[in-house]
Amino acid sequence: MHNKSSLQKKRLSYVPLVPEAVKALRKLKVVSKEKTEPPSDQAEIKKKFKKTYGQPIVAFEVGAETEKKTLKIGVVFSGGQAAGGHNVISGLFDAIKDFHEDGKLFGFLNGPIGIVENKYIEITKDKLYEYRNQGGFDLIGSGRTKIETEEQLKSSLDTATKLAIDGIVIIGGDDSNTNAAILAEYFLNHNCKTKVVGVPKTIDGDLRSSDIEMSFGFDTACKTYSELIGNICKDALSAKKYYHFIRLMGRSASHIALECAFKTQPNLTLIGEEIMHKNISLKEIVSMITELIIKRAEMGKNYGVILIPEGIIEFIGEVKTLIDELNVILASGSKHFDAINKSKDHMEVLAYLKQNLNIESFSCFEILPKDIQKQLLLDRDPHGNVQVSKIETEKLLLDMVKKELNERSFKGKFSAIAHFFGYEGRSALPTNFDANYCYNLGRLSALLINQGLTGYIACVKNLKESVEKWQYCGLPLTMLMNIEHRHGKQKPVIKKYLVDLKSHSFLEFSKLKNYWKFDDQYLLVGPIQFYGDKELTESCPFTL
Amino acid sequence: MHNKSSLQKKRLSYVPLVPEAVKALRKLKVVSKEKTEPPSDQAEIKKKFKKTYGQPIVAFEVGAETEKKTLKIGVVFSGGQAAGGHNVISGLFDAIKDFHEDGKLFGFLNGPIGIVENKYIEITKDKLYEYRNQGGFDLIGSGRTKIETEEQLKSSLDTATKLAIDGIVIIGGDDSNTNAAILAEYFLNHNCKTKVVGVPKTIDGDLRSSDIEMSFGFDTACKTYSELIGNICKDALSAKKYYHFIRLMGRSASHIALECAFKTQPNLTLIGEEIMHKNISLKEIVSMITELIIKRAEMGKNYGVILIPEGIIEFIGEVKTLIDELNVILASGSKHFDAINKSKDHMEVLAYLKQNLNIESFSCFEILPKDIQKQLLLDRDPHGNVQVSKIETEKLLLDMVKKELNERSFKGKFSAIAHFFGYEGRSALPTNFDANYCYNLGRLSALLINQGLTGYIACVKNLKESVEKWQYCGLPLTMLMNIEHRHGKQKPVIKKYLVDLKSHSFLEFSKLKNYWKFDDQYLLVGPIQFYGDKELTESCPFTL
Repeated sequence: MHNKSSLQKKRLSYVPLVPEAVKALRKLKVVSKEKTEPPSDQAEIKKKFKKTYGQPIVAFEVGAETEKKTLKIGVVFSGGQAAGGHNVISGLFDAIKDFHEDGKLFGFLNGPIGIVENKYIEITKDKLYEYRNQGGFDLIGSGRTKIETEEQLKSSLDTATKLAIDGIVIIGGDDSNTNAAILAEYFLNHNCKTKVVGVPKTIDGDLRSSDIEMSFGFDTACKTYSELIGNICKDALSAKKYYHFIRLMGRSASHIALECAFKTQPNLTLIGEEIMHKNISLKEIVSMITELIIKRAEMGKNYGVILIPEGIIEFIGEVKTLIDELNVILASGSKHFDAINKSKDHMEVLAYLKQNLNIESFSCFEILPKDIQKQLLLDRDPHGNVQVSKIETEKLLLDMVKKELNERSFKGKFSAIAHFFGYEGRSALPTNFDANYCYNLGRLSALLINQGLTGYIACVKNLKESVEKWQYCGLPLTMLMNIEHRHGKQKPVIKKYLVDLKSHSFLEFSKLKNYWKFDDQYLLVGPIQFYGDKELTESCPFTL
Repeated sequence: MHNKSSLQKKRLSYVPLVPEAVKALRKLKVVSKEKTEPPSDQAEIKKKFKKTYGQPIVAFEVGAETEKKTLKIGVVFSGGQAAGGHNVISGLFDAIKDFHEDGKLFGFLNGPIGIVENKYIEITKDKLYEYRNQGGFDLIGSGRTKIETEEQLKSSLDTATKLAIDGIVIIGGDDSNTNAAILAEYFLNHNCKTKVVGVPKTIDGDLRSSDIEMSFGFDTACKTYSELIGNICKDALSAKKYYHFIRLMGRSASHIALECAFKTQPNLTLIGEEIMHKNISLKEIVSMITELIIKRAEMGKNYGVILIPEGIIEFIGEVKTLIDELNVILASGSKHFDAINKSKDHMEVLAYLKQNLNIESFSCFEILPKDIQKQLLLDRDPHGNVQVSKIETEKLLLDMVKKELNERSFKGKFSAIAHFFGYEGRSALPTNFDANYCYNLGRLSALLINQGLTGYIACVKNLKESVEKWQYCGLPLTMLMNIEHRHGKQKPVIKKYLVDLKSHSFLEFSKLKNYWKFDDQYLLVGPIQFYGDKELTESCPFTL
């Protein structure tokens, strides 16, 4: 066994909870509910998914016990880490063994590339044991390859045929589940018996719908970040001399920031979706923060805590336009790219951009701190695109606020510290919520495959209630799709779930945020508790 | 009551453990042990501390119950936050009430300035209740003022006299406890009956001695940082594509890094004291890291975790010399300072420094990344000194390693992420260890004052054992002192406790570190557990 801390060892013996009604898997029979279709772009999506389009939502009810059935299933992690992944595998493994002790589970290695290249391990009871209720994806690794090209699809088909597997479970985010849908359709078109089922994974919380109440990993990530934010709030209140600008991981949507805001009640939390909806400019955001600082200083408070979602930059209209323009003019090989690279100093670069960017974009660029300007120009991905997730938005805002305070001749004290929390929360030991949720998602995936369903995503409902009341169902992946412009093409993809400005959570936040601004209502939530009172160990996300 | 999370509320009712032998405070009588003196500079220290020099260590034994005595005590937090501060106050308060229900506790506000300006609140049972076992110092705040000038000392004497207090408890680090010694001596010299007692507080772990086994806050800070480091190790192992360079708070000494290394077993942990002892240069450190990366790449591992103590920069001989030189030539108002400020660009600054720094210092400066060069020149404290704690050493090393990998034509992948953990761990909910330790330190402080002792520091021994075996004693502050050069003067100050390269912990680390380099022996310690098995909730620091 690998090295383990006391808590890791202790967690090995945690037994995830399963609702009584779905305990006997062989007694569950599928119930087809209403037929489905996506909310928009139905015709185009139907064209791409002729076989899997319009399938019904399915639920389960208890019936007579069916015969034992030997299942062979492959499983893969796709994309970034999220706490609970190993529990999806545990649930899947235990379910396969419930269907028949001879059933087998294969783990594809290092992400979807493992399917394409047919690289896998067999996951046995002994091998799995030490990963139960543990963080990380290290049992089989993960990766970001997508199965998209005809060649990749063909290789995946070969793998499925060679292994003669009944199903593949793809544990991933929105893009990975789009991939699962494509693979399901492709397999059907090639008369392959292998079913494809997705599992909603992402700490970002943006793979949700009216039916998918939550993606796994979100709860653990938010609780981990909130522990740190709470500690920092308490430190700010005690030291009384620092502003903390905290950027939080969560690529586009602001779900993590919103959840952490409820948990810790900092002075200000920016929500990207609100900024976009109200068309708030970067300058206005900076002014808003500056005014908060000035007003708090008048109250004798030279400290505070501000949460900034990682993806906020793309919700600020003029910054989004600027990035889009830079992506075009700086595309590798373009004449602009060469011209800028040849400039002898930053002044010359600025002069060049002034001539080549739209006037609004240039004035947006011009007010950015020099470091950020350079980052936008130099730190680009292999396609020449600005790497938005690498932009240190917390430092950008901090620098701009400092400048505006100077311009307004602010006489008070302003000392600020920038933080970024991300990797700390992806591979943590899963909370009891995520441990239970994932285990049930894994069991449900086996059940869906056993029922011959393909192009579905596992969906456990009623998550706000105690586990006993959780319900299993399956959603056709096509009902979650819409058409989006990606890399120059119109593609059907699963629609990202953004913060809904009409949701109860957001309305509640809008009401409370003004109290949090000046009265320090900080909550110190402390570390995740695995043992002790239900209240401490069994809570679900607030924004669920 | 202020807003509280579920865990905060739950912690309010935790009852800190007290050894049976010291439960009945009024039955404890003082036992004088051996007379003491500091290990060096005895004559000079004696000259400054005529009255409090050479006092004996004291212990306690159970005797006949003494009469009730009404104590009036003032308490103050001095310096940075450390988890458990409110429990020192709780222990102190409960002890005062044990001596007589009419006893009173005053809390001086916002640090030692509260003593100087006689600003305080009375700490009552009701007020204290909601701070029991909580993080932060927010009940009375803290501050960094020192009581040093004759005027400050005189004002403090006035406060003590006006309030007619029996004692002042100063909760602080090495400098604050030096201050406590000065105040004790001053009060005696002016026939003031107020006793002064210190309590060893600092997350850095550098206020220790052969008798003071641990400063409070260290355990909570290290457990909090280790949770995050462990999560990051697991993430590195799962994602397999990032190096994480993690800088850890802890001003000079590398105690925190060493403790976290044992807890999480990352690939490399730099220890400042070892670097100084072996006279390892910055270039050599960079080469060491570079070689680790190259060797791991050969094993197919393009990921890893490296811990860097905040204070490391001052342990690297040539960097220390460079900083000392810069502090002199850049002292505000100096001709150099003006010349550099007038330089028209960085090239001109470099040319100027080349002429004015020693050749070794300039070659050290020259190899630093440009950002760090600028930081050294521009980011200075009010005295014109380089702000060492603000130097982003993790980024410095990351940049230099990246450069060296390029120079060595490294063909593998190197992608790295920089982190700094500090404020996250200072104001967390105190672990059970810190909650118990602090409560006993508080009780002991009252006991020392009640016995008429002054110029002492509270010392609880046997901390490795269960609380039942902990022992109370008092150490004369002067025995911890030596003479150091501070701001141009020779001053008696409490000697910082650095990592002892002959200690069992360090020798053990030296043995294990080679296994950790290439075999990934990461431990994911997870969050602090307040409830559950003793093993999870009652551990003390590993390096104790």
